[in-house]
Amino acid sequence: MEKIRLGIVGYGNLGRGVQYAVSQNKDMEIVAVFTRRDPASVVTVLPVKVEKMDAMQDYVGKIDVMILCGGSATDLPAQSVEVLKFFNTVDSFDTHAKIPEYFENLDKTGKECGHLGAMSIGWDPGLFSLSRLYFEAVSPNGNSYTFWGRGVSQGHSDAIRRVAGVKDAKQYTVPVESALERVRNGENPDLTTREKHTRLCYVVAEEGADRSRIEQEIKQMPNYFADYDTEVHFISEEELKRDHSGMPHGGFVLRSSESANGNKFLTEFSLKLDSNPEFTSGVLVAFARAVYRLAKEGRTGAVTAFDIAPKYLSSLSDAEQRKNLL
Amino acid sequence: MEKIRLGIVGYGNLGRGVQYAVSQNKDMEIVAVFTRRDPASVVTVLPVKVEKMDAMQDYVGKIDVMILCGGSATDLPAQSVEVLKFFNTVDSFDTHAKIPEYFENLDKTGKECGHLGAMSIGWDPGLFSLSRLYFEAVSPNGNSYTFWGRGVSQGHSDAIRRVAGVKDAKQYTVPVESALERVRNGENPDLTTREKHTRLCYVVAEEGADRSRIEQEIKQMPNYFADYDTEVHFISEEELKRDHSGMPHGGFVLRSSESANGNKFLTEFSLKLDSNPEFTSGVLVAFARAVYRLAKEGRTGAVTAFDIAPKYLSSLSDAEQRKNLL
Repeated sequence: MEKIRLGIVGYGNLGRGVQYAVSQNKDMEIVAVFTRRDPASVVTVLPVKVEKMDAMQDYVGKIDVMILCGGSATDLPAQSVEVLKFFNTVDSFDTHAKIPEYFENLDKTGKECGHLGAMSIGWDPGLFSLSRLYFEAVSPNGNSYTFWGRGVSQGHSDAIRRVAGVKDAKQYTVPVESALERVRNGENPDLTTREKHTRLCYVVAEEGADRSRIEQEIKQMPNYFADYDTEVHFISEEELKRDHSGMPHGGFVLRSSESANGNKFLTEFSLKLDSNPEFTSGVLVAFARAVYRLAKEGRTGAVTAFDIAPKYLSSLSDAEQRKNLL
Repeated sequence: MEKIRLGIVGYGNLGRGVQYAVSQNKDMEIVAVFTRRDPASVVTVLPVKVEKMDAMQDYVGKIDVMILCGGSATDLPAQSVEVLKFFNTVDSFDTHAKIPEYFENLDKTGKECGHLGAMSIGWDPGLFSLSRLYFEAVSPNGNSYTFWGRGVSQGHSDAIRRVAGVKDAKQYTVPVESALERVRNGENPDLTTREKHTRLCYVVAEEGADRSRIEQEIKQMPNYFADYDTEVHFISEEELKRDHSGMPHGGFVLRSSESANGNKFLTEFSLKLDSNPEFTSGVLVAFARAVYRLAKEGRTGAVTAFDIAPKYLSSLSDAEQRKNLL
């Protein structure tokens, strides 16, 4: 069997996850990892060639799809268009407000250069987006709800770490169980930000720091915490390491709807993940398979999960899919 | 706006559901219902033209997609190929063992006659199949489970009614909660038929019938009940009518999987439906939209939910989908 040849661009949690995920798929292999760091300094979780970023062009014709594992804030907006000039790509761009602009840039470059880029792939955006679309399409008269957690928010953890006197911190986003139940009961509630999620913070304070001042600063932080019920717990560095070093996450997409005859429907998709980056990586890798196949059919430009027929994601043949999964 | 012109073939619970579902979608309309009965005798839930089956060919060029609302046992295998000769179609064929053969027949006719037929559309097969495929593709190392219910099984209710001395009956398929919990806990259990579902029967016996003989005959019926824990409750005709006249259903698709680094994932899709046929109708109607669009792009033959990019199901434009749902 000819394997799909993949590259990993950026080697953080997501890059490591992609290496693990590819090892579970027999029809693909990683040709090389590309990093901004000194390749000799990069320790990989499984054996793989590590290259400098600027060696990428030597791999034209040797890599079918590049999986971009950088962050959405600064890495991807610049990187994705550059890499797409030479390779097909998959990325997990998740800055919702900037998706339309990002799509246009990627689509233009892909069409000009003859490559295909799948963007915003993961679980949200990604599998959650698919649930929202399928649910709404099949039951148009209703309300959709997305809840996140219980899980670690990297952005909120970083925000706490910027408070003076904080040595380290981990923030969990927690869906409000009673709000979930109201949705499941078909109440179609209008839920405020505060009613949907609470924020749970584990903070390691520097010695002698004013804990009550830190707690207030966190709770009053605009955008991040002010609109939520926030709990702050001070713990030791050892406790943080022992109990909060994982990256679990999860969430729920629900739609409560009604037929024209007054019958009620509830559709619900949920995830519970011990490792957010390792699950996201599995999604990226399945979509890399789809990009490989679609590019072979001559497809270029940008696509999202909405544009890809599900069959392209599976390693099974169309006939096997119908026999075993339909 | 030019509306998608639909026909309904067969006017039972599903046909009525499709009428309700189309009324919730502004971009489509029902041109006519086709029936084997005397059209004058058919009472529709909303105003619509009712025609004899053999008037169908008069509608060539006036209907874009026919929604086939017959049963999988006898109606669809003969009907779908005949209708596809003249129209694009959508059907809910659900005899799993015969899907490969059904697909081949439909695909051949569709390609010869220049029409597109979407088959096995509904929630299982349909949305549940999609969940199985997406879940397995993104997390290949794991086990998938499908549970049905709590809901009314028409086939099992009919089987009970064939027992001598039974006047009427309703059978509920009920998932075993403890089995669901074992899957959710990541135990990856091997579950027997008996361990996954129980069967709950409400039976109206004829006057003077031997109830204990009826109960034994039901519980020992091969294929339908012998492999399950079955409960039989005798109730009055009034109770059956009052408490069991609905057609609720639902179910769960779960996948318990693990990354190559040993982190666990649980993905779960569930449905809770007050009316099985009215929800299934909503799915049929969304896929009729997709068939209309794909046929316009020149697609012919047979397709399943696996072959259709999600974007085709939504009434929103591609840009609106990216902005509002991604």
